[in-house]
This record gives sequence, C-alpha cells and structure tokens, in this order.
Amino acid sequence: MEIDLLKTIEMLKQSNHILILMHHHPDGDTLGSGYGLFYALKGMGKTVRAICSDPIPQKYSYFTDQAEFDEMDPQLIVAVDVADAQLLGSELESYKDKVDLCIDHHRSNNFYAKNTYLAVESSATCEAMFDVVTGMGAKITPLIADCLYTGVATDTGCFKFSNTTSKTHDVAAKLIDLGADYVMINRIMFETKTKNRIVLEQSVLSTMEFFFDNRCAIICISSDVLHKSGAEEDDLDGVSSLPKQIEGVDVGVTLREKADGTYRVSMRTSEQVDASKICQAFGGGGHLRAAGCTVQGSYLQAKQEILDQVKIALGV
Amino acid sequence: MEIDLLKTIEMLKQSNHILILMHHHPDGDTLGSGYGLFYALKGMGKTVRAICSDPIPQKYSYFTDQAEFDEMDPQLIVAVDVADAQLLGSELESYKDKVDLCIDHHRSNNFYAKNTYLAVESSATCEAMFDVVTGMGAKITPLIADCLYTGVATDTGCFKFSNTTSKTHDVAAKLIDLGADYVMINRIMFETKTKNRIVLEQSVLSTMEFFFDNRCAIICISSDVLHKSGAEEDDLDGVSSLPKQIEGVDVGVTLREKADGTYRVSMRTSEQVDASKICQAFGGGGHLRAAGCTVQGSYLQAKQEILDQVKIALGV
Repeated sequence: MEIDLLKTIEMLKQSNHILILMHHHPDGDTLGSGYGLFYALKGMGKTVRAICSDPIPQKYSYFTDQAEFDEMDPQLIVAVDVADAQLLGSELESYKDKVDLCIDHHRSNNFYAKNTYLAVESSATCEAMFDVVTGMGAKITPLIADCLYTGVATDTGCFKFSNTTSKTHDVAAKLIDLGADYVMINRIMFETKTKNRIVLEQSVLSTMEFFFDNRCAIICISSDVLHKSGAEEDDLDGVSSLPKQIEGVDVGVTLREKADGTYRVSMRTSEQVDASKICQAFGGGGHLRAAGCTVQGSYLQAKQEILDQVKIALGV
Repeated sequence: MEIDLLKTIEMLKQSNHILILMHHHPDGDTLGSGYGLFYALKGMGKTVRAICSDPIPQKYSYFTDQAEFDEMDPQLIVAVDVADAQLLGSELESYKDKVDLCIDHHRSNNFYAKNTYLAVESSATCEAMFDVVTGMGAKITPLIADCLYTGVATDTGCFKFSNTTSKTHDVAAKLIDLGADYVMINRIMFETKTKNRIVLEQSVLSTMEFFFDNRCAIICISSDVLHKSGAEEDDLDGVSSLPKQIEGVDVGVTLREKADGTYRVSMRTSEQVDASKICQAFGGGGHLRAAGCTVQGSYLQAKQEILDQVKIALGV
C-alpha cells in the first residue's frame, strides 16, 4: 500500500523497537538515510538497529563508526532506499516478505513492502528522510545532518544531475545550518581517489582512440590492466564516463573485458545520439544517453562492430 | 567609500547609461555577474555595455552570445568581481580611477572604487548580485538565472568549497526555480575536458612518484610534455590538485618547468601539514593547505630539495 509522509511518521513514532534494512552494495543514499533514521530514532529513546548484507565501505566511517545498535525483537521493519526486495541481498533475504515500511525515491520501486512511502520527486531517499525525521520531531544533530547530506550529495553528483531540484538545495541549506560538515564530506566523496584508481585511469586513458572526426572516443579496460592496477569494483566507478567527458565527443564507449572473453560495452552519448538504440542492435539497452550491451569476439572485432553501429547513428 | 545593498541598488536605478567592467582572465563569476547585471539593466530599459580586457572563453557562450551592447556615454561605471584596479587588465587601464561602483565579494578588495559594495560573506559576486538584481525589481529571466548560477557554481566548486553557505544553496534553489539550466551549465563547467587536457593528464600522471609510505605524491609538468599535449594555460586548471586527491596523501606536489629552467612548485596538504611553512623555506608562501615557491636546479635536484623539507614537515 502506498502511504503518505504523515502516515509514515505516525508508523515510526508508534513503534519502540525498529529494525532498519539497507540495500546490498551500500551507497551514500541507503547508508545516509539508514543511519540518519537510526540516530534520529535513538535520540527519541527507541531501541534501533540498522543492518546491511554487505560490509560498509571505510569512506563512510565518519557517520557509521559511532553507531551503537540495540539487540531487540523488532516491532517495525523499515527498508530505506531499497526499490526491490532482491536488493536486500543474500544476508537479509529472510526479511524479503517482512518489510512493514519502505521509504524510497526510486520510480522502479515495486511495492514489495506492506507500506511504501515513495518520494519520486526527491533527488535522494535522504532528501525525503529529512522530511521524515523533522516531521517526527527528532532533534537533528550535526551527525544526522552529515548522514542526510551524504545521500543528497552522492545521489545528485553534488547537485549536478538533473534530479536536483530547488527543494534539494533547500534541504542542503538546512543541513548546513544544522551542522553538516559538507567540506569534509565532499572531499571524501568527490575529491579522493585511491592510488589504484589513479594507476587504472592512467592505463585506461592510454588506450583511448578517437573516431569520426573526434565525435566518438573509445577506451578499453582489459582484464590484464584491471588486475595489474590492483583496482577493485569500487575503483571503476565513473571510469566509463571518461570518454564522453571530452569536448566534442558525442559517443563515449568503454569496452570492458569479462572473464568469459566477451566485452561489456558502456555507452554514453550527447543529445545527438540515442545510446539505447545502438546497444539494442547487440541485444542490450538502457537509457537515451547511457546504455550498455555485450559483444563477442576479440577486442578489435568488438570495437569494429560497435564502430559500425556508431557510424550509422552519427550519419557519417 | 563602503556602501550597503540599498545604496547600491539606488545608484544603479538612478543611472540610465551604465558601463560594466569585468576583470581580465575572465572567469565564471566576473562574467556571470557582469552579464547578469547587464541583462537585468537592459530589461529595465537602460542602455548598457559590459567589457573585459581579454577575449571571453568559448565555454561561456551560452550566456554571452546573445548580448547586444549599447554605445553610449556612461553615467555610471560599475566593476564586478574586480578586487583591485590592476585586475581590470591592460585594455581597461584607462578606467582605473573612474570606477563609480564596485560590486565584489573578495576580502582582498582594496576599495579603489568611489563606492564599494563588498559582500564578503557571499560565496561569489554572483550570489551578492542576485540580491542586487532582485532588489532593483528587475525581471529575472532564465538567461539571467544562467549567468548568476554560473558564478555561484564555479566559485564554490559546485557547492563543495568551504565558502558555500546555506545562503548559497538558497540562491541556487531560487535560480533553479527561475529557470537556470543547471544541468547544461554543470556539464560544461565540471564534466567537460579538452582532448589536450586528457593527453596532458595522462603524461603528467605517468610521472607520479610516491614517497614516505605514500604520504607524499609528486608529479612533474615538463615544458616538453606541455608543448606536446597542445594544452594551454586553461587546460592546466586543477592539474596541481591531482596528487593531493589520492587517498592517504598528506603532501601533494606539482613541479612545473618554467621557460628559465627553474621549477614552479605548487603544494597542497592535508590538515597534518603546513604547506606555507614548507614553501617559505624556498622564499615562497601561501595558505596553510595550498602554497607555492620556485626552486632552482635540475628536476632531480629540485625534487630532492622539496622532499628534504617535506620529510622534516612529516616528521619521518
């Protein structure tokens, strides 16, 4: 059942023992909204616990480290930023049919929970959570402000993505006034790269090739380069947006070698080109400006097949 | 004389022929506040012209292209975001002693103008200009919103720098509601690199060396690499912040070879290390976390001299 903000606040206020579930492969928004809600409920004297299938990345320790979870028999099970019960992950699988309340902002939410507060107009679940915690009458400490600012900043690419609204900025303004350490948070989230990531970027950029009068740029992440750099999955974040970031490039392509010898293609395009249409030719799909597919064959073959379709799309 | 917002608005309202001066090497804030004020005053039926010593970079064309300047004998000469008359540059030198009104936010402003509205609490002149143009009762068109958003976003590193306040976010929220195309603006300002910049970054990153248990990272921009990449001064923006961005690095150093064979050192440090103190040992200076100096000798000599001082600073 879809419920509104007031009913959501009421459910939270009426329960004294609350279990919060976050999605697997946790990001800034699920952690920020989960821990933000945790600290707010704790401050109201409730017993609370927040759990996740996967370990929490070290970079979020500024708001996760000081949490002291309570052991209890939950009266209310709340999932935050979890659009689908599958996303709870293997460790939380047993909760799949037991979620009493889901607080989320994803349009793709499939209403698996008994009650869902779906704030699709919110840039982040943390943006919606700000209304929830203030609506409950919780005291918003600087620590809670850090949690919520983290989700808002990470889900909007620091206010750059099109999901940013004036409301997003209004919430950011309030969180700053409430003590969010936005300089530290943004430095960790946006200005810090691992040494392995730098090594990887360097190797990957050296593979960059330009085609069709520089309108198409292609990079390759080979298994070998990935292995040698020591980079992990997390370090790959954003690498596939590099080719498209170059001035004048309409089609940016990243070919990533998979263990089975195929190539996973990530494509980013400008307004001129429909990425999903190109990827559909290979059985893939996605959005207008960002899509993906899998291509068989050697690197040279895979690249050529992609280039043939890009050529058609560019009309050259 | 220092004046307040109301007096500033009054001066602008009372003049019908206004000349706007921007600083040389124009950036997003001087251009955004200059053009924003220009369009606002034009909309109020005044004759206006905005000028700059240097050519305007192409990337700002989305708000500079459609300006139609008026020829006139100015009643009021206004400088925007110009902290010192020297910054007007050679082409506008003749206006140095003729500035009637300066609208600025730099603490370093030396009150060269007859009247100065200095909004030091503003992250950007554009943030202060929002109060000026709304206070004048000008209609804020989407084009004006684009101008002002540009200056606010560029001067705050897209709301990341410590000069960002809740007021900055409040102004951004209003500018978005007024039609600022923030997605396009942020893509141009923060997500676009020239091909030359990518080539340069790749060459420069390949020179990166780590010292003292990865706490110090050094890169070199040689004349040769700079020349080969085809990169221009603009393309160098932010390169010197790359070493410090690596996780665990307390001292990031960029050594740039100058035409006279010396090396220009840019140093960025974490809270642990005083960059200005290290650079002072070489006759340089700057801020706690960002400083610079010049070192003589070959690259190896220059690097060793810097490393000797960094070693002392790190206490290793």
